[in-house]
Amino acid sequence: MIAKTPEAPYWAVIFTAVFSGREEAEYGETAARMVALAEESPGFLGYESAQGEGGLEITVSYWDSEEAIRAWKRNTEHLAAQKRGREAFYSAYTIRVAKVERAYSF
Amino acid sequence: MIAKTPEAPYWAVIFTAVFSGREEAEYGETAARMVALAEESPGFLGYESAQGEGGLEITVSYWDSEEAIRAWKRNTEHLAAQKRGREAFYSAYTIRVAKVERAYSF
Repeated sequence: MIAKTPEAPYWAVIFTAVFSGREEAEYGETAARMVALAEESPGFLGYESAQGEGGLEITVSYWDSEEAIRAWKRNTEHLAAQKRGREAFYSAYTIRVAKVERAYSF
Repeated sequence: MIAKTPEAPYWAVIFTAVFSGREEAEYGETAARMVALAEESPGFLGYESAQGEGGLEITVSYWDSEEAIRAWKRNTEHLAAQKRGREAFYSAYTIRVAKVERAYSF
């Protein structure tokens, strides 16, 4: 559940979204497919996801480089999912690309 | 629910934790108090939090500088809450400090 990531530095994509409540079955299927697709993507290190009250979804994916993130963003099937996200799944979202400088665990 | 943050660059603290299921009332009170305390803390820009299935909590807080994050980490009341977190609330957690390089919203 907590991603096992290598020593910093590496990269994080922080995806925060409000689920619209529409097309819930398709949303679930698409989310699962995007995880499988990301796992096949070069430079993918892991991800964490939680959906809380009021439909707030936070998904953080970890990558070994900015180039890996750019390639993932441009993936054709992912582009189609992003379009469905805007059309149907999400009423709002913010994506932040960040460089992880240090990390510690308990 | 989605934090309104300024133009990048700024900083993110990605806190991912597994709730132990113990001391749930104290956990809720402490979490609410930590939000109030962070909001009073210099350089705090906002936060997002979701708790999903299996007790996975993801809380991302945003800060205007690394120094603001260091000061927040050292805050006396926050240090006490971190100790309770390790003693009682969490079975595991990872904290990642990251510099947000770019962001976009829908």
